[in-house]
Amino acid sequence: MSPSAANLAPSRLAPMANAIRALSMDAVQAANSGHPGMPMGMADVATVLFSQFLKFDPAAPKWPDRDRFVLSAGHGSMLIYSLLYLTGYDAPTIDDIRKFRQLHSPCAGHPENIELEAIECTTGPLGQGLAMAVGMAIAERHLNTEFGSDLVDHKTWVIAGDGCLMEGINHEAIGLAGNLQLGQLNVLWDSNHITIDGDTSLSTCEDILARYRATGWHTAECDGHDFADIARALAEAEADPRPSLVACHTVIGKGAPNKQGTHNVHGSPLGAEEIAATRAVLGWTAEPFVVPDDVMADWRSLGARGAETRAEWEKRLNAEARGGEFSARMAGELPTLNGWHEYRAKLAADKPKLATRKSSEDALTVLTAAVPAMIGGSADLTGSNNTKTKSTGPFTADDYSGRYLYYGIREFGMAAAMNGMALHGGIVPYGGTFLVFSDYCRNAIRLAALQQTRSIFVLTHDSIGLGEDGPTHQPIEHVASLRAIPDLWVMRPADAMETAECWELALRRKDGPSALALTRQNLPALRDDADENRSAKGAYRLVAAKAARRVVLLATGSEVQIAVEAAKALEEAGIGADVVSMPCWELFEAQDKSYQDSLIPEGALAVSIEAGTTFGWHKWTGRDGLAIGIDRFGASAPAEALFPYFGLTAEAIVPQIKAKLGL
Amino acid sequence: MSPSAANLAPSRLAPMANAIRALSMDAVQAANSGHPGMPMGMADVATVLFSQFLKFDPAAPKWPDRDRFVLSAGHGSMLIYSLLYLTGYDAPTIDDIRKFRQLHSPCAGHPENIELEAIECTTGPLGQGLAMAVGMAIAERHLNTEFGSDLVDHKTWVIAGDGCLMEGINHEAIGLAGNLQLGQLNVLWDSNHITIDGDTSLSTCEDILARYRATGWHTAECDGHDFADIARALAEAEADPRPSLVACHTVIGKGAPNKQGTHNVHGSPLGAEEIAATRAVLGWTAEPFVVPDDVMADWRSLGARGAETRAEWEKRLNAEARGGEFSARMAGELPTLNGWHEYRAKLAADKPKLATRKSSEDALTVLTAAVPAMIGGSADLTGSNNTKTKSTGPFTADDYSGRYLYYGIREFGMAAAMNGMALHGGIVPYGGTFLVFSDYCRNAIRLAALQQTRSIFVLTHDSIGLGEDGPTHQPIEHVASLRAIPDLWVMRPADAMETAECWELALRRKDGPSALALTRQNLPALRDDADENRSAKGAYRLVAAKAARRVVLLATGSEVQIAVEAAKALEEAGIGADVVSMPCWELFEAQDKSYQDSLIPEGALAVSIEAGTTFGWHKWTGRDGLAIGIDRFGASAPAEALFPYFGLTAEAIVPQIKAKLGL
Repeated sequence: MSPSAANLAPSRLAPMANAIRALSMDAVQAANSGHPGMPMGMADVATVLFSQFLKFDPAAPKWPDRDRFVLSAGHGSMLIYSLLYLTGYDAPTIDDIRKFRQLHSPCAGHPENIELEAIECTTGPLGQGLAMAVGMAIAERHLNTEFGSDLVDHKTWVIAGDGCLMEGINHEAIGLAGNLQLGQLNVLWDSNHITIDGDTSLSTCEDILARYRATGWHTAECDGHDFADIARALAEAEADPRPSLVACHTVIGKGAPNKQGTHNVHGSPLGAEEIAATRAVLGWTAEPFVVPDDVMADWRSLGARGAETRAEWEKRLNAEARGGEFSARMAGELPTLNGWHEYRAKLAADKPKLATRKSSEDALTVLTAAVPAMIGGSADLTGSNNTKTKSTGPFTADDYSGRYLYYGIREFGMAAAMNGMALHGGIVPYGGTFLVFSDYCRNAIRLAALQQTRSIFVLTHDSIGLGEDGPTHQPIEHVASLRAIPDLWVMRPADAMETAECWELALRRKDGPSALALTRQNLPALRDDADENRSAKGAYRLVAAKAARRVVLLATGSEVQIAVEAAKALEEAGIGADVVSMPCWELFEAQDKSYQDSLIPEGALAVSIEAGTTFGWHKWTGRDGLAIGIDRFGASAPAEALFPYFGLTAEAIVPQIKAKLGL
Repeated sequence: MSPSAANLAPSRLAPMANAIRALSMDAVQAANSGHPGMPMGMADVATVLFSQFLKFDPAAPKWPDRDRFVLSAGHGSMLIYSLLYLTGYDAPTIDDIRKFRQLHSPCAGHPENIELEAIECTTGPLGQGLAMAVGMAIAERHLNTEFGSDLVDHKTWVIAGDGCLMEGINHEAIGLAGNLQLGQLNVLWDSNHITIDGDTSLSTCEDILARYRATGWHTAECDGHDFADIARALAEAEADPRPSLVACHTVIGKGAPNKQGTHNVHGSPLGAEEIAATRAVLGWTAEPFVVPDDVMADWRSLGARGAETRAEWEKRLNAEARGGEFSARMAGELPTLNGWHEYRAKLAADKPKLATRKSSEDALTVLTAAVPAMIGGSADLTGSNNTKTKSTGPFTADDYSGRYLYYGIREFGMAAAMNGMALHGGIVPYGGTFLVFSDYCRNAIRLAALQQTRSIFVLTHDSIGLGEDGPTHQPIEHVASLRAIPDLWVMRPADAMETAECWELALRRKDGPSALALTRQNLPALRDDADENRSAKGAYRLVAAKAARRVVLLATGSEVQIAVEAAKALEEAGIGADVVSMPCWELFEAQDKSYQDSLIPEGALAVSIEAGTTFGWHKWTGRDGLAIGIDRFGASAPAEALFPYFGLTAEAIVPQIKAKLGL
């Protein structure tokens, strides 16, 4: 779809592109920090994209059927700040751009969706922008199938650099997009032969176009400084039913006469002298941060055309029977969770002994039936992660109505695609892998938290309890290291009821991600009450001491049952012991101090039990408490052999507690 | 090099291969856990490799000039256990194999170099075996150039599965190998069209051979069940000067009549019935764990041929003038660190104000000149990580004598290659990226620790101190989450002297990895003493209280100077305050309790100051102490603005301490 015909002659496009160059080099100079090379190199391509191809309306940054534009090469952030300002978005203002990279300016060093409404996703960590765009394109095709082309029919455009293409995640992302034949996805590769260290030949001899073709993509090339040639290549990309990679041959820092084409222009200000020389070369006489009226008028005219397209779309939305449903869906609202109350009541009655990964599947069976927005998947561990339900048929190139993604052995690509789906809107993505392989997608989990997306990571086989696969597959430090990520909810439920509670909390959390750590092995039910979501406060007293309380046992997940057994043994010895289940530290930390102190009171010996590193637990146990865990790598053996081997039994723990009490 | 001519007829190779199949299916059955599909599918290929191509001597598993064999598809561990037993290595024994996946058996679920001397590296986390093999091949070419073909001339052989090829790290690893034209590297791809979730078409449509060719590789194909065809393809791979990928078309679980070719045979025991049927199909009448004498004799004959090759090599080693040097190098011994004492003395005298990344470069300048085994590199951040010195010229396809790798934008591939170099022996690898991007290579850092390799990770831009690049680039949780990894030394030095001390400790640590977290911004020198390596105990008292001690300030890296300022301010108010610098928690944790208590005594208020998450600090501060840090994502602004913004100044901290003391 080309919202505007190619009605601007090159003579008018050139100054428009130079406006990007001038703003970029001046902002970087003012900040004395930043990356002028990419915005200057890709200014011409971006001008063609925004003037002839991109569907957008600056008056409505969140218009659901806009094209998505992702600057995967996020270090070139001045490109997108320039474009948003020039096309007339409310933000950033020219004052924001003047304060590029300064405290409180929304024009941060890298584009952040949390700073500017018109930024689709936070980029900078290389390769992830493109991988999130794959998720956006998946979301678009699914919603198109669900709600029809009248409401959903847009493209996803990406600008990526050599770094984005060299990162491993690129292989995963384009493999996924190729197999799913996401034809609405078009990637514009800024091919300038320069990386930070120098010429790309220092580190690669790859025929990138051949690689993309081998992965099911269409490829095209253009002279990235010839407006007509760019338009031709972009039109080809639009027309091809496959995802497209357009190699835009550019000169990095184009316009800077003495520095362009070298890595010196990549990540440093040009300097006053070179900026003056660039102005002369470009014929740009305006003061810094000033755009001549005629150039600005041409840029602003683009927005007006987008407004018409949006107005037509709004009419269709209002005429559409399911318009309200669509809008609610895009707003991230959840429907009534049919059957959920009954499911939890049944758990309380039946008290099933199940692995929490299986309890998770049971919960998902109810939730995915009730919530059409939920799209599941796994990185090739479907049967192990228990992520597939009968409501979620396969999403394939032949059937975009499916709600289950066979992501392949691509943890990082999966997690980033999930973030992209969540950012697109209309989708609540969840996806599975083994907890230990959260390492493989860790920075995407981080970006989920930073971007405040509702991505739900299902991380099974959550301790030595996975058994025979051994230390490479046994998470030791992973729960702790996920807890260390700000704004991520890390949930480790102890039984089927807590698993249900955690799922509900994760699902209802609109503004951030959750990670569920789930067992491979069966766990007994510890709860028979279903009235209240007791996990909502992050921790609660599961067992109250009968004798005078001298000990508080803190545990999560599979170790709560051990804590319950230890408490029994202590009580038998006349030592009062509470058991506190702590499925989610982050939620517990959000409670007031009086609640926290009521669970972990001064004076009682606090003992933590968790089948992983003790790292972090002293926050609750103090230096004087006991933190019981596994501060070494695991071992290969059946789970029943490993728990005693690592001292994680009531029998091994109780004597330590008695000794600590001086008994 | 083919140590043995193809002198075994197919009629004798077939039972040899079936011995692998029988041992594998029986061991998995006995363990009731494991992966029979891959060993059975690749048994024929492995038999050809070991009988006609691989250079090895079971009597000398660590013979330096052996070919390296890496089972990247580590879940097929019974393949390598079978091969090691059949060819006559001391370990594993048949009893070890009977106890496959049981506690204390060296035959762990996945192959572990720490369990069996003949295992080159620990595999299982998909894609990393192949990526480590790239490092081994780099090490081989470098040492070949350095010591000549008489001493070093061997190949690296890899067996990889679809998972290894689909993971993102594969793209990074083969890009590196292709650009460096590592012709001694040959990858045998078990192409069986099956992943855990089902047919590979569920998740990929990639033309893998085309992708490898696009990346500078030679490719070949063979029928993975036709001995002659396998030998032809492997010979082609050996002959080609490029790295080679051989697509071995196999049937997963080959021999199991009812399950072969399906994902049911991938990761579960065959079951008694199917095992009986398989025995019938294979004509295998021996009892479980018994190999007929004639078959065993054929296997054992291979080892004898390897012994001859090794004897010739030993002669050459003994005749070689630099033989002693080579042996010391392969044993991981360090030469005298010429100039090191003088360098540290000069630091004490000059007290330079430098970024620790720059101090690291200065230390490296001395160390790389003294230690030829050190090979550096960076994931395209050479000028930022300060990892290149004048002793380390580029390692390129045209010049393998170089000691610096331009790894490209490939953090995970870099870290895994470093592990491979360290595992090969003769090399002490160090490599740089930003600390925040340790996320991208996290599981390789973990595998460095698990494998006990001397890999040194140089992680610069280590806090909000990096400034304007903003939250995507500012590590908050990274130091903590690295500390959570068992057996990894995480070092965050406070000035040039501590940086030197940490480098020396990392370099002298033969049996494990270290990560150095280094600043972008300048830091004042805090030390003028050089006699003792004070960082060796992990923490030490930098400043002793003058007034009666009421406070102990604990800090690392750039925050030690803040602690020193805060201590001054407290002393001025009559409050005695120690400053303890803690460059390495792991080393401090290894000290006895009396040393720990002498630094952090009961009764004093312990206050930690670190520009990152407070997660984990309560171990030292207790619940009653003060942990001062940043428990949220960062912001984009100059570093000078960010430290006050996040309250990391003496002015902001001192009042909190006074309040805590009730003053």
